[in-house]
Parts: sequence; structure tokens; C-alpha cells
Amino acid sequence: MSWNTFGRVLRFTTWGESHGPALGAVVDGCPPGLRLSEADIQPFLDARKPGTSRFTTQRREADEVRILSGTFEGQTTGTPISLMIENTDQRSKDYGEVAKAYRPGHADYAYDAKYGLRDYRGGGRSSARETAARVAAGAVARLVIPEVTITAWVSAIGGDAVDPANFDAAEIGRNPFFCPDPVAAARWEGLVDAARKDGSSLGALVECVATGVPAGWGAPLYAKLDADLAAGMMGINAVKGVEIGEGMAAAALRGEDNADPMRPGVDGVEFTANHAGGIAGGIATGQPVVVRVAFKPTSSILIPQDTITRDGEATQLATKGRHDPCVGIRGVPVVEAMMALVLADHKLLHRAQMG
Amino acid sequence: MSWNTFGRVLRFTTWGESHGPALGAVVDGCPPGLRLSEADIQPFLDARKPGTSRFTTQRREADEVRILSGTFEGQTTGTPISLMIENTDQRSKDYGEVAKAYRPGHADYAYDAKYGLRDYRGGGRSSARETAARVAAGAVARLVIPEVTITAWVSAIGGDAVDPANFDAAEIGRNPFFCPDPVAAARWEGLVDAARKDGSSLGALVECVATGVPAGWGAPLYAKLDADLAAGMMGINAVKGVEIGEGMAAAALRGEDNADPMRPGVDGVEFTANHAGGIAGGIATGQPVVVRVAFKPTSSILIPQDTITRDGEATQLATKGRHDPCVGIRGVPVVEAMMALVLADHKLLHRAQMG
Amino acid sequence: MSWNTFGRVLRFTTWGESHGPALGAVVDGCPPGLRLSEADIQPFLDARKPGTSRFTTQRREADEVRILSGTFEGQTTGTPISLMIENTDQRSKDYGEVAKAYRPGHADYAYDAKYGLRDYRGGGRSSARETAARVAAGAVARLVIPEVTITAWVSAIGGDAVDPANFDAAEIGRNPFFCPDPVAAARWEGLVDAARKDGSSLGALVECVATGVPAGWGAPLYAKLDADLAAGMMGINAVKGVEIGEGMAAAALRGEDNADPMRPGVDGVEFTANHAGGIAGGIATGQPVVVRVAFKPTSSILIPQDTITRDGEATQLATKGRHDPCVGIRGVPVVEAMMALVLADHKLLHRAQMG
Amino acid sequence: MSWNTFGRVLRFTTWGESHGPALGAVVDGCPPGLRLSEADIQPFLDARKPGTSRFTTQRREADEVRILSGTFEGQTTGTPISLMIENTDQRSKDYGEVAKAYRPGHADYAYDAKYGLRDYRGGGRSSARETAARVAAGAVARLVIPEVTITAWVSAIGGDAVDPANFDAAEIGRNPFFCPDPVAAARWEGLVDAARKDGSSLGALVECVATGVPAGWGAPLYAKLDADLAAGMMGINAVKGVEIGEGMAAAALRGEDNADPMRPGVDGVEFTANHAGGIAGGIATGQPVVVRVAFKPTSSILIPQDTITRDGEATQLATKGRHDPCVGIRGVPVVEAMMALVLADHKLLHRAQMG
Repeated sequence: MSWNTFGRVLRFTTWGESHGPALGAVVDGCPPGLRLSEADIQPFLDARKPGTSRFTTQRREADEVRILSGTFEGQTTGTPISLMIENTDQRSKDYGEVAKAYRPGHADYAYDAKYGLRDYRGGGRSSARETAARVAAGAVARLVIPEVTITAWVSAIGGDAVDPANFDAAEIGRNPFFCPDPVAAARWEGLVDAARKDGSSLGALVECVATGVPAGWGAPLYAKLDADLAAGMMGINAVKGVEIGEGMAAAALRGEDNADPMRPGVDGVEFTANHAGGIAGGIATGQPVVVRVAFKPTSSILIPQDTITRDGEATQLATKGRHDPCVGIRGVPVVEAMMALVLADHKLLHRAQMG
Repeated sequence: MSWNTFGRVLRFTTWGESHGPALGAVVDGCPPGLRLSEADIQPFLDARKPGTSRFTTQRREADEVRILSGTFEGQTTGTPISLMIENTDQRSKDYGEVAKAYRPGHADYAYDAKYGLRDYRGGGRSSARETAARVAAGAVARLVIPEVTITAWVSAIGGDAVDPANFDAAEIGRNPFFCPDPVAAARWEGLVDAARKDGSSLGALVECVATGVPAGWGAPLYAKLDADLAAGMMGINAVKGVEIGEGMAAAALRGEDNADPMRPGVDGVEFTANHAGGIAGGIATGQPVVVRVAFKPTSSILIPQDTITRDGEATQLATKGRHDPCVGIRGVPVVEAMMALVLADHKLLHRAQMG
Repeated sequence: MSWNTFGRVLRFTTWGESHGPALGAVVDGCPPGLRLSEADIQPFLDARKPGTSRFTTQRREADEVRILSGTFEGQTTGTPISLMIENTDQRSKDYGEVAKAYRPGHADYAYDAKYGLRDYRGGGRSSARETAARVAAGAVARLVIPEVTITAWVSAIGGDAVDPANFDAAEIGRNPFFCPDPVAAARWEGLVDAARKDGSSLGALVECVATGVPAGWGAPLYAKLDADLAAGMMGINAVKGVEIGEGMAAAALRGEDNADPMRPGVDGVEFTANHAGGIAGGIATGQPVVVRVAFKPTSSILIPQDTITRDGEATQLATKGRHDPCVGIRGVPVVEAMMALVLADHKLLHRAQMG
Repeated sequence: MSWNTFGRVLRFTTWGESHGPALGAVVDGCPPGLRLSEADIQPFLDARKPGTSRFTTQRREADEVRILSGTFEGQTTGTPISLMIENTDQRSKDYGEVAKAYRPGHADYAYDAKYGLRDYRGGGRSSARETAARVAAGAVARLVIPEVTITAWVSAIGGDAVDPANFDAAEIGRNPFFCPDPVAAARWEGLVDAARKDGSSLGALVECVATGVPAGWGAPLYAKLDADLAAGMMGINAVKGVEIGEGMAAAALRGEDNADPMRPGVDGVEFTANHAGGIAGGIATGQPVVVRVAFKPTSSILIPQDTITRDGEATQLATKGRHDPCVGIRGVPVVEAMMALVLADHKLLHRAQMG
């Protein structure tokens, strides 16, 4: 079932295909009185924008957002905010091959199995282009949670990880990889270039930290803060794993090594560790919320792969179109956006119940 | 915000605390005409039941389920199915210490930060006892998807993994660890015993595979099958990470190593790999759906830890009550239940849109 | 699709059949720290209870509610509140006739057309007995909105209306009809007795007023306060019409006769009329919220009616069982409960967005 | 709380203000493979369009709809359908008076009480202009339920009702009132002209009948077909009452007069009456679904009314702008659209549970 709305009280709905006239998001439930103009959204879209370096797809989109509703005299009114981004670089090409055969690793086969037809141009609705709409919605969500600071970065590409000792948040914006470690960033140039030249692609890890989240946001069950983050992150194209705090590694720990002891602190409590990633029992503890997300390597590669046609015949397919050699890189602004959207929703949920 | 309902059209709502009179689930949206009695649910509760070996908590609960509504003459009627399990072993003990101080790693502090008060007896609503209600609901969900077979097992405890070469599904039910590898099961006896004697605890990995899921269930965005599985699994107590298919490891792969090539097969298509874990673009491919979940080590340990009292004073706390030395073990039936609940929901969602 | 949950953030889910072992409601999203015990709920159930006069069904139910979760030391904890009422007077009778033929005016035929099977004992899930669960849930909702006073009454039975000049709120609890006009109450004794002796039944109008609702609760569209009230009221068994303020009569008015002029008042504004029934553009104006609801005459009558059997044969059916001669009378506590549930939900929704 | 999404599985979300650049709807959950182009939607928008006679507002809008997503090669793909209508006639006028004082009967005061600010230009989000988005969404919903025929008409204006003996469905499209009785239509010309010349306005009744709804759509409780219709209709601007079948009049009937007897018929059953309006116990009976809706007289009138300014000062206000003398007239396509949207949603819900 198509279900393009996310959130419980601060909800957003996205629409649009890779090669349709436009795509967009409707953000509903936003508090009134927040200053909002296109200038508050554009920088986040620019960060995600394709075609800005040789390490991302060469599709060129201005990704200019227009606010079509929900503001008045520069402020949100509390009514739905409609955001639209026109598609401008829908290169006319021959989609015959993709129309007839299924690209392995893509949604093509599953999509046809479900719907019986599909918009095969650039992946249609399954294209990562949809994430532009989420990034726009996320920019609105950030305004709802001024107390929170969200920072994401690529922490590994193709298994080559940043060195925590080199971590410098200021570096993230200085290289085309959202890499906080200048040494790793230098290595990744060669790594990604090589993969691109091989016609291959690389997976990546993205880490995201939110500071300033007050203790108490979240819920004990089902609408747990971590469960909603997991849903939000796993809902991003190409994501195959989500971790909170220690994540999968927690499974190898003993209780005393995973404990987050507390002692009296400035704001009443100080934690001396954060294995939990800022969430206990689904509720924020006041520590930084830490999420890690695994992006698989882009499925579109030039190396031919076995597949079948829509008629069930064996064939081979190499994806020649423009694509990201490492889709995780441009995932960074999307992960930040989903973090903002989930946290903003939980802020409103919290005050619904708690006043 | 308390939010104890999960699912989109096949929905369940759970209620109950560790030390209240009872706990339960209401399953709504179930198709009519399915044969259902307590005997269809009890075996799954028995598998999760505490007190069956020295490797789980010594709390003894019969965990007998009663169906209070939604069936007539042994069949579901299409109306809500109310399931109730009475708590019988609410040992009267002195909760003074837990009432006054926060157990590190537990929801205690976050809970108080949110609600300002909490039922501290046995963790209250945050107790893993709630998962009995999900297991009961999951047993109903299984009846909705007879075409699907779900199997979960513990694949590692405290970092000690099963050997895939030894995998034997028949072994899972033969040892107290839900372990498919008899050699590992033997090792784990010592491992868990040692942790228990140390007053410590161990994390665990649980893997779950669903076969028979038809290509097409799921959705391209937000209500993606993988996103809903991630939400469901991360919503289980003590879970800190969720992986689909290659999971976090996908981040270290190259495109050609992560590809799932296709060739003509018996049912039209045969995949020659399943890195995707049976889900592409949020939609089932028809391959086995593969999910891995990380359980942190039980936070309740006998080793004293630094913490604070409700009044903000420094103190130390050792959790002396009954507890599971490895909460992941009894997570196996819960993971299976969540898999069943998510798949059943998506089966109904699929036919809502597709007829 | 069975859908037994109502509300957006303060949600309740009901379950149970007329002749099952019990029925109940789970109330989720309730703020913590409210004093709640069975004694806060029982009076509302007693008001709705059958068998208290000859003008209601002779089924005798204690309708004793038990709180199974969500409270601790007499206060709500913010977790789901499970309420259960056992059925005690499930008179064993021969349901053969009702099992085989459809009672006109009842859900029997539609139910079979949908589900293919039904629990025909006392109407099963379609029985007005379910409203006990709502009344219990409504009692919890009242605690969420202490600023609001809700009063409902029967304003007409079988077309015989109360005289507004005789209106005395204190009278409502003094007669078996929830009638605010003692003169009308006296007339209704004869009216309802006559209908009962004829084996017939009567329709009724119920009016409900909520005072103290602050201006601002509600929403401009879809989740309008009036739209949610309409859904809640039309969802009560036997209700066929819902009016806000002037209601259907507004269609016959001119603009100046329907206007609600304003002038400066004690709290900033004073309205000099309330044709709107306290809701403008879906949002509360601060005036009393006024809803009127039409209950059809009980469909169960002793007068034989043409119908068909499950096999499609012509037959006649007279409903001999216990039933209310005027189901609208006992609808009064149910209407009040739905008013409380909708308003409490909107109070929480309002502060989610507005802080 | 702003909540601009309606529906359970076939959901639509609307956005836009009276004087913003555009308004629109996103329809989600639509089955794939339906032929859909702008030409399928435009006729319904044209029927609702302002400025087509002297009996509606003189605002002139082309109301041209564009489909921005969700179709491919003229067919729905199963992904969200984004519909946009640009506002073209946003007459620049002086809104100073309306900005400073509250129009009685409008949402102005309540809106300010809720949000603290409002887009006062033409009513902003509260403008009936929003209904264009619903009419567009409704046109899509109609494609989902080809088995159903929906017809609505104005059955009374200002208390002057059509004569059932004159009912001719073919007349509905032949006069500017959607009136099925040519004699009444002739009378209404004078009636509405007089009100307009007086600077006044008139209320109206709209009746809507859906035939072809199969027995079984709907649900026994909460998501009852009638409850969802009530929510949908009461959510339309200016609606103050909703009736199903006998509606409010049912309250004055005796059981035998309200009965809908059955006898064997062509499709198994034939009802000899339809007091229930095609819905019993929340589920369709297979008879025509009959809904009646009361529209209040347009609140914008030229006759000055007492009101207050935003600063709480007494003043008088006469609404001089363009407005409909009888907003109920253009409500006809909106009522039809809501009927289509609710029925289409319930068709999908029914098959979710029933297969």
C-alpha cells in the first residue's frame, strides 16, 4: 500500500517521481509563528544537491524550493506548508532497456510484482530524488526544535572508516564527502574515483548526533523515540541497517561494559557514558542521541549483471545513466532531515501528553 | 506520548505492567473465519515463558492466555480480539531502593524525567513482561499469513557466534538458547553460567527469516516493509540495532558484491543471491525476508553501578531481583511475533490497494 | 474493516461482545498524575446501566469496572489504562430464530454480507452493550478536561419535546428519562409505557452541552472539532443524525438571523448569540459547545416484520428478547462520554501544536 | 492541531489558502492501472467553479488542475497523486478592516484565539476555496469505485424545499442551483436574488445518494460507514448538520414505522423501505446510501453586524467582498466528492480485511 505520510502529529507527506514535472512535500501540524521563507530551506537542499562534485551523480538540478502555502508575512500560520521543487534536468534518453529488464538491486522487479506497471524513468517514485522533498520538510522541522543541534557525517566508505582521533566537525563541510576527518577525506578521493572508474560503487556509514534533546521526549513502547528513528532511517532509499548508541555491537557486550552510570551533575544528572545513544526505554535521557545508518553501495553500476526481462528472458544489464558512485554521501542531509522530523514530532507529542 | 498501538490496518494495542493484575493485547482488523482458540496462542507464550531454565529469570508465570472477545464457535468474527494474561508471580518485595534511585541502563531516569512519576515495581510498563502481549498478538497474526514460515534463533551471545556450517533448524527447540548450532549451544551454557555467577549479563544477536512472503508486499516509501520491520524490532525492549539482509555490512561492500542477480526460474524468476534480505525499495522480492536484531546485555546486574537518587544524590545500585542473564534469549519468540505482525499487516495493506 | 480505535492522540480502543465473557476499553495517551480509581468511573456506568427502571431493558448487569493497568498508587502513570467489565447476565436462551433470520433494522444482514459469519447472540459486537466500554473510557477523559462541564439530556421522545421554559438541569437525574422538564417526564411515562405494551419502540433526541471549552481547541479542516464530534456521535449505535448549534435548521435561515455578533466582554469578548454551537471553522469559540443527536427507535420490536432467512427464504420475525423500548434514553451517558473523549483529545492536540 | 489528511487507507491531504499562489491535494493509496488525466477531474471542478452565474461569488477562477505525480502514460501507478490548482483571481483589495476586526460567523476570532495570527486575506485556510482541492481528490476517488453512482442536489434553499413529485435528476445540471425540481428552481431565482439584493444570504440543504454500494462495505464501530460520512460532511465549510436516511426525523418515529423489511429479491434480498439510508450497524446494506447535509447561510453579509476588533474594541462590520449568497449551492460538488472519497476508502478497507 502506498503510504507517503510520516509522523504522528507533525506529519509530512511527499509526492513526485524522478522524471515528473516536480516533487514536493506537505508539512502538517507545524506550530504557528515560526519565521519561515525559502531561504531557511534552500541551504539544506543545496547540501544534498546532485552535480556539485565528481563524486555524485552528474544530473544537474537547481533544486529550488517554493513555499506554496502555510505562511503569511514570513511566518508559519499553523496550516499545512506545501513545498514544491521542480525537476529541470530530466534528460531525454532511451529508457527502452530499463523498461524491458529489471535492474538488479533496484526496486524494479518488486515494483512490477506489486503494481503490474511502473514509471521506469530514472526509477520513478523509487528514485533517491524523492529525498529532496524530505530534506525540505526537515528544514521546516528544524525550526520546531531550535533547542536541538543535529550533525551528521560519513563515518566510513567501502569499509574505510574515519579515525575518531581526527574528528573535526568543522571539516564536514569542507570536503565533498561530509567527512569529519581530513585524512580520511583525502583517502576517499582515490577510493571513490577508483570505484567510479571501475564502473562500480561503494557503501557507506552515516552517523548522526543530536544534542540538546531534553530528557523525556519519546514513549515507552511502539512510538519509542528509537523505534520512530529506526522507521525513519530505514525508510531512506538504500539503507539496510540502523543502530542506536552501541547498536549491533551491544550484542557482544557484558552488562557492566554497556552501563551508563549516573552521578550528580550541573542539570541534576551527569552520565559518565552513553552506550544507550541517548535513549533508554524509548525515551530521551538528555544525552546526545546517536544514530548510525548503513547505506548499501549504489545498485546502478556499469558492470553488467545477470537479470531477466519483463517477459522472463535471461539478459544482462549495465546501468549506463548518471548515478552516484556512493549514494551514502548525499544521504547525510537526508539522515539529518529524518532526525529533525522525528525529534520535532516527538517534541509535539511530548507536550500533547505532558502539557 | 504513550502510544501503544502498532500496525496500519491489522493493528494491535497492548497494555499492562509487570506487577499489575494482568496484561494483554487487543488485535483489531483480523479477517473473519480463521480458526482460533487459546491453544493456537499458548505454545508461543510457552516458548517465551520465564523460569523454564536457569538461563532465564526465575520469575514463574503460567502465562495462560484467555481470549475475551472476537471469536465465535472457534472462529474469528472480524471484530477485535482481546487477549489477557494474568500476572501470578508478583513477588512482594521491598522496592524501596529502586523507588528511590535510578537503575543505570533502565528507563527509570528517562521515565521520571518524562512523566514525573513511575510504577517502579519490576520496571512497570517498561518491563520486558509486556512482550508476552506481543507474542500473543503475533500468534493471531500468524493465522493471517499461513503462506509464510517464520523462524528466529539466537546467532550470537556475548560475541560468541554460531557456526553457519553447523546450522540445523531442528536444534533451535532442543536447547534453552534457541540456538541452531549444538556446538555453540554447549559453549553458551558455560558462557551464560559464568556471566550469571559474575552477577553480569550478556548481549545477543537474534536472526529471523520469513520464507513464503510473496513478491509485492510492502510499499515504496515510509510504509516500506523494511521500515515497518525496523520500527517493530527497535520497539522491542533492549534492542539497539536492526539489519535487513547484509545490514550494516552493506556499507563496506562494492556494488557488484552486493548485487542480487536474477535469472529465469521456476516461478518466473530466480535470484542467485539475497544481499537485500528479500526487500528491494521497500517491497518484498519473493526471497526470504532476513532480519537481524541486536539485544543489549540485560541492564539489571548484581555488579554495583554509580547512579543517583530521585533527589539527585550520588549512590550505588546493584539490581538484586530476578532477571534474565541474557535478555536476548527470550527475545526470539518476540522477534518472531513482530515479524508475523508486520507481515500480516502488509498482506492486508497490499490487498487493500491491489484487490 | 474492523476499526475499534477512536481519537488522534488521546485514543481509546474497545472490545467485547454482548454475550462474551467481558468487554472493555484501553485508553492510551492519558496524561500522568491524574487521580483515578474505579470510583471515578462507576457512577457513569451506573447511569447507563440497564435494568434500573421499566423503561429500559430488563437485562441486569452490575457493570462493575476494573482498572487493569495504567495507574499506580491511585494516579495515572501515562501508560495505557485497561478497563474491563464482565458480562454477568448472559441469559441462556434459544437464539435459533435470530441465528437463521435477519432482524430488520439491525446489522444482522449487513454483518453477514460483510463477514460471512456473525455472533448472533444479543447482536454480538453490534450490541449497544459495547457503549459501556465507551462510557468507562469517557469517565477517564473527563479527568483530562476538568475545566469543562458536560451535560446531556433527552430533549424529545417519539416527537414529544421538552418545553425549554421548563428546563431545569437538576431534574435530569430525578427521572428515568434524563429529562430536564418534569412535565415532559410525566408525559413520557405514559408514552413509553404505551409503546412498550404495543411491542413497539420510540426514537429520541439527545442534546449535549459542554461549557468551559476554551476558544482555540479544534482545527480548521478535517480534524475540525465539529467533524470529530460528528464522527464520534454518528458512531454510537442507533444514531442517524448529528447537529451542531442550529444544525439542520441553519439551512432555513438568513445570514443575519444566524449571525453570532460579538461585543467586548469580561474575558475580552462576549457573544450575543450562539447559533454556531460554540464552533466556528472547526475551532471552539469559547461559547458552549452544543450538539444534538437523533436516536432511531429500537429496531427490536415485538411486532412481526417481513424478513428473510440466511437461506434467502421469506419469513417473519418478532424480537422477543429483552430490549430498550427507547434506546435513546440510555444514550445520554454515551453521548456525554463521546463529548468528553473528543474534547479531551482536542485539548491534547491543541497543546501539541501550540505548546 | 492542523490535520489536513482524511481517510484511512485511501488518504488525501489538502493544502493552500484563498490568496496564496496555489492550492492542492495529494491523494495516496490509489490503486494502480486506473486511466487518469486532467480531463477526468476538470468537469467536477468546473461544476464547483465560482463566477458561473449571478447566484455564486463573482470571483473568477479558471480552476485548472494539473497532475504533478502518480501517473505514467495516462495511468495511475499506485504512488501519490499530486494535484495543483493555481489561484489566479486574488483581487488586490484592502483587507485592513478584516485584518483588524473579526467577521461574525467566520472562523476569524476562533482562529486568532488558537494560532495568535492568521492569513486574513479571503479567509485564508478557512476559505471555502479549499474545497476545490477536495473536489479534485474526489474525482480520483470516483475512478476507484466505478460500481457506484453518486448524485447530489440542493433540496431546499432558505427553507423552500423541492417537491419530491417534481424530482427529475436530469434537471440538476440544467439550472444554476443543482435543483432537481424545475418549479423550485424558478422560485429560487427570485429567492436568492432577493437575498443578494438585501445584502443577506441563505442556508441550504444538500442531499446525496450513492447507488451501487455493495452490501458489506463499512465497519461495525468507529470506522462505521456512517460515522466516516458524518466526519467527512461535517468537515465541509459551513455544514452544521448531517443525516443518514431518516436522519433527525428518526427520533420522532416508532419502531414499526422505521423498519426496513426484507423479502427475497433478485440479488437474494429486496428491502421494501430504506429508512436506514443504506447503512445498518455501520455497514452498507446494498440499498442506496442517503446523506443529507445542512449548510448555514453564508456568514459574509452586507448587513452590518456587531463585532470586536483584535484589540477588543466594539465595532461593526459588513463584509463587502465577493461572496456566495448561498454557499450551499456550490457545496453540491463538494458533498459528492466527500461521498466518493469515503466510499472509495471503505472499498479498499473492506478488501483489506476480506480479501
